[in-house]
Amino acid sequence: MTRVRIDLFASLDGYAPADQSPEQPMGADWGRLTAAWTATRTIHERVFGDTSGVGTTGVDESYAAAHFEGVGAEIMGAGMFGLHTFPDDPDWTGWWGDRPPFGTPVYVLTHTAPRPPISLAGGTTFHFRCAAIEDVLVEATESAGGMDVRVGGGTGTARDFLRAGLVDDLHVMIAPVLLGHGIRLWDDLRGLELTHKMATEASESGTIHVTFTR
Amino acid sequence: MTRVRIDLFASLDGYAPADQSPEQPMGADWGRLTAAWTATRTIHERVFGDTSGVGTTGVDESYAAAHFEGVGAEIMGAGMFGLHTFPDDPDWTGWWGDRPPFGTPVYVLTHTAPRPPISLAGGTTFHFRCAAIEDVLVEATESAGGMDVRVGGGTGTARDFLRAGLVDDLHVMIAPVLLGHGIRLWDDLRGLELTHKMATEASESGTIHVTFTR
Repeated sequence: MTRVRIDLFASLDGYAPADQSPEQPMGADWGRLTAAWTATRTIHERVFGDTSGVGTTGVDESYAAAHFEGVGAEIMGAGMFGLHTFPDDPDWTGWWGDRPPFGTPVYVLTHTAPRPPISLAGGTTFHFRCAAIEDVLVEATESAGGMDVRVGGGTGTARDFLRAGLVDDLHVMIAPVLLGHGIRLWDDLRGLELTHKMATEASESGTIHVTFTR
Repeated sequence: MTRVRIDLFASLDGYAPADQSPEQPMGADWGRLTAAWTATRTIHERVFGDTSGVGTTGVDESYAAAHFEGVGAEIMGAGMFGLHTFPDDPDWTGWWGDRPPFGTPVYVLTHTAPRPPISLAGGTTFHFRCAAIEDVLVEATESAGGMDVRVGGGTGTARDFLRAGLVDDLHVMIAPVLLGHGIRLWDDLRGLELTHKMATEASESGTIHVTFTR
């Protein structure tokens, strides 16, 4: 049975960075929010292509490894693909490199003109969809073939799925920093602990892992 | 050396209840925020007067016990004393009962007319002060005689001390609930993790204990 999963980053005061730019596509504070995540062995291997075995192997790593388990299709916002970085360049294949870490069909939500799909090394194909999130989720679920659908982000896209009640498993990594501004992750989600079972775990890095499971 | 300490409650989305009323002096959601705290052995003993030994004895209890260690004076807002509940009754001695759990001088910040101090059983004397928080802190520090000064709350009063940079030790108990509204605990505190050492710990109850230590 396909589950819809999300892994997100937030500061202790509930923000995700909102100051994306071409120079800092995830925002200036992104590095502080994700430091413990990018330090893990799994992210070194899967995202940075460093298979030398470096990286942390504690609690954070266990969540990073789980992030890549059992995913059959991905959905992400246009910003996370990188459409906003070079919106008018039809040859731009996003900022995930020649071998993106997904290895599945990836459905990119966009409000701009249709683009042909982009197939890259490692089994990733980006499909661009201008449609309701419910309809894109149906398509992604079909292509996942019984495996899970991951909503990759960004935070705004993830919140759309959360507020629509479409998410089975939410994992939020709360970094030990106070940002003071950005996208407010938790708005309009009062009572999520009543529809989902909630659990908390603190890691060696000071990161708080919060999970909501339906 | 006197340290200025605060223990606070917040929801995962960073709120403290703001809907205080005479019937629910701490707000309707207060019970959900503080359930793990009030379940501890220390709170049963010190606040409820139940010395039968009931109550939890895990991580939450260790913080509850520490809450009462080494405090020589307390500062609280008028709302936490209960001045707003019966503002015109000069005989009202607050809603902490005949034997408040403080056992020290307690300085109540107020903007209303001066009141004489109130001495109650167990060593608690409430003093009412209409003055700048810095000045009240000087007085409380003197009367603490080398022990710590605790800023008891409410959340608004605690935030005044935090934003003024007056707090050495902040402990926030983040309950596994999303409230969606209330007083925003973390506003204007960006970078607190740079001036204070921050640590996180998850308890058996799902509560996240976050500490900032200068």
